[in-house]
Amino acid sequence: MKTIKVGLLGLGNIGTGTYKTLEMNKRQIESTTGVSIEITKILEKDVNRKRDITVTPQQFTQNPDDIFLDPSIDIVIELLGGIEPASTFMLKALQNKKHVVTANKAAVAANYDAFMDAAKENQVMFRYEASVGGGIPILNTLASDLLANEFEEILGIVNGTTNYILTQMTEYGLNYADVLKVAQEKGFAEADPTADVEGIDVANKLSILISLVFGIRVAPQEIPTAGISNISKEDIKLADQFGYKIKLLATAKKVGNQLEAHVQPAFVPKDHPLASVSNEFNAIFVTGNAVDDLMFYGKGAGPLPTGSAVMGDVIEISRAIAKGAAFDHYAETKAKKMLRYVGEGQNKYYVNMMAKDVPGVLGSIATTFGSCGIGVDSVLQLSREVNERREVPLVFILHEVTRARLDEALDKIGKSQFASEIKSIIRVM
Amino acid sequence: MKTIKVGLLGLGNIGTGTYKTLEMNKRQIESTTGVSIEITKILEKDVNRKRDITVTPQQFTQNPDDIFLDPSIDIVIELLGGIEPASTFMLKALQNKKHVVTANKAAVAANYDAFMDAAKENQVMFRYEASVGGGIPILNTLASDLLANEFEEILGIVNGTTNYILTQMTEYGLNYADVLKVAQEKGFAEADPTADVEGIDVANKLSILISLVFGIRVAPQEIPTAGISNISKEDIKLADQFGYKIKLLATAKKVGNQLEAHVQPAFVPKDHPLASVSNEFNAIFVTGNAVDDLMFYGKGAGPLPTGSAVMGDVIEISRAIAKGAAFDHYAETKAKKMLRYVGEGQNKYYVNMMAKDVPGVLGSIATTFGSCGIGVDSVLQLSREVNERREVPLVFILHEVTRARLDEALDKIGKSQFASEIKSIIRVM
Repeated sequence: MKTIKVGLLGLGNIGTGTYKTLEMNKRQIESTTGVSIEITKILEKDVNRKRDITVTPQQFTQNPDDIFLDPSIDIVIELLGGIEPASTFMLKALQNKKHVVTANKAAVAANYDAFMDAAKENQVMFRYEASVGGGIPILNTLASDLLANEFEEILGIVNGTTNYILTQMTEYGLNYADVLKVAQEKGFAEADPTADVEGIDVANKLSILISLVFGIRVAPQEIPTAGISNISKEDIKLADQFGYKIKLLATAKKVGNQLEAHVQPAFVPKDHPLASVSNEFNAIFVTGNAVDDLMFYGKGAGPLPTGSAVMGDVIEISRAIAKGAAFDHYAETKAKKMLRYVGEGQNKYYVNMMAKDVPGVLGSIATTFGSCGIGVDSVLQLSREVNERREVPLVFILHEVTRARLDEALDKIGKSQFASEIKSIIRVM
Repeated sequence: MKTIKVGLLGLGNIGTGTYKTLEMNKRQIESTTGVSIEITKILEKDVNRKRDITVTPQQFTQNPDDIFLDPSIDIVIELLGGIEPASTFMLKALQNKKHVVTANKAAVAANYDAFMDAAKENQVMFRYEASVGGGIPILNTLASDLLANEFEEILGIVNGTTNYILTQMTEYGLNYADVLKVAQEKGFAEADPTADVEGIDVANKLSILISLVFGIRVAPQEIPTAGISNISKEDIKLADQFGYKIKLLATAKKVGNQLEAHVQPAFVPKDHPLASVSNEFNAIFVTGNAVDDLMFYGKGAGPLPTGSAVMGDVIEISRAIAKGAAFDHYAETKAKKMLRYVGEGQNKYYVNMMAKDVPGVLGSIATTFGSCGIGVDSVLQLSREVNERREVPLVFILHEVTRARLDEALDKIGKSQFASEIKSIIRVM
């Protein structure tokens, strides 16, 4: 049986899960593929940590060159996380003609072109299935099985921490801050939760999905991104009344020759398959011009699900090496399709404001929306909830409009005598 | 650009959809893969039917050998449906060293080994992604991206016709016969619906999934199979009261060294992702020992979704030809794992019976279940619904038991003075 030797960068939680995935299923992988995969060297400082795997002191090294310059190693798995030194290490591995597999969305989104170029130049494979959707096989599937489609739209719930928080807020009527605290205690959210709760992690993943599906590069920083830290339990209750659930959505949509993309919390209709994706689960919903609607659902994080995706890539590369096949790269649209990235585009919006409880207030505000060309889809005036300042909550669902024009209208409304406070603005799917 | 020529067997609905999928996305496929795919010959008698595609009279032939013996043709797509002559044609194509792609679940399930052997012998690829789950990329994904898993269980809603009928019965409180009639009028069900409604189509698909995932052959005829024609609207209403939806499920489950498999309507808990798969949509739910729960959701039938899967296989083979790669076959477990197929296994059951409305009836029946070693999970006695014969509906949810033992217990109960009729028995997931 052909043996493929692998070097592993990082033996933290994900590294350990990946090692364990191989350990658990080694015999099954061998009997199925006819290839034996062995992780022979591991770059990791913490050699003494207790891990539930069989690893010998001889496997550890502190010197990355022990992996990059070892001619017996064919594949390097990068699981350090963070943009650097991971990116430098991966480039070095590629330049030394090692195939590279990574779960690192931040590094892939930041240096996508550099990795692709280095892989092509050195005739090796670069795979990053685990970087989006954790265990869900989405990237390889989009890049192979679904090639007979043009895609109109991708919608993703691709961050388990925020989906867990929103689910708990929805199911138990809790505040954001309280749920976050519990999530941190349980280890579902990090001590500094910024990258998750502010949508930065999701923007990295959306950037990767856009590269693969639409063939153009949009850096994560170019994607209008909002997180969930401003979502109130009142927003969630009102969403429910209108027939929606609030989810943090990654969206990329082709409108003619333009590509719109954004990361935002959104009202998702309750009968949409994404609405029932709860807690730590992720899902990616795509619409192709032949296949129509598809959804891929699974665990978007965690050591073993991530290990499944990483090892899936490693097995694919190992099989290609074993049969001496030319190494192929993800099929990518070379023509770039004249697709122009335009940012956020037009969306429907939910606006929750406090307004003076006086006759004519609804008419005046609705007229201002109308004069700005914004149609009103539904409205909810909760007169029973007048506060001590004689203000009432007034909630609108508005037809499609750019955020700039919406802000303009809300500015006019804010300057009028009627509105006192804009409490929240959330996209409606 | 390398051109790959394809012969097509059958230009009915699915054939036309496949042709159209290629036509719609030809430029995109070429720019993405660098390969041009052309359907040059079509075996089809009905040359005059109006189709929404551009096809010339010269492309048609009535003689299959015009395709099998044409050295310019690399790939044969089989979309005739039915076991014969499709199977003979596919074997002939393989023997003539053509790669074969098919959507034909009946033929693949019936002659799986013959196709695999012929493909290996002739060093060509045999692909059948479209045969299970229509447009959903499930087979290729199980056979590549998910290889780093041992699978414990597969659950599938893989027939759109029956899922449509059950959904309509559930949503509108309708009878099976009435919904079937409307489905037939709308073209969602065939004039002879037997293969769909009696689960035969599902058993074919489950046989294919088992081959791929568990590495053993179980012929469709060996799989205990029940359809939906006996499901009443009362069953659906009672399922709802207990917190379930009724779905026609394909199930294969590893229990130790044994494999259980069956096709049956089942009570699916409302909070399970499969419960929200409605109407013509399909979904396959798998649990791997690393990736955990995954679900793939999409359109299980229809010309374009099926065309997406067929063309996905054709593109994969074309890319392999273009780069001169050795042709690989689905990785299959060779060791066969000592897995022993045991049929239905143990299941939880819902039993709806009519019982005499006399004191002690519930105790007597529950005691009989107990004496047969069957635990009662829940019970519902609807005393307000006593009929003119002084009988009441009595509904049990029973703990895991073999069907044989359940039948034994029900036989005893039937012979007692208390029970008058067993109205329905449905598996509970």
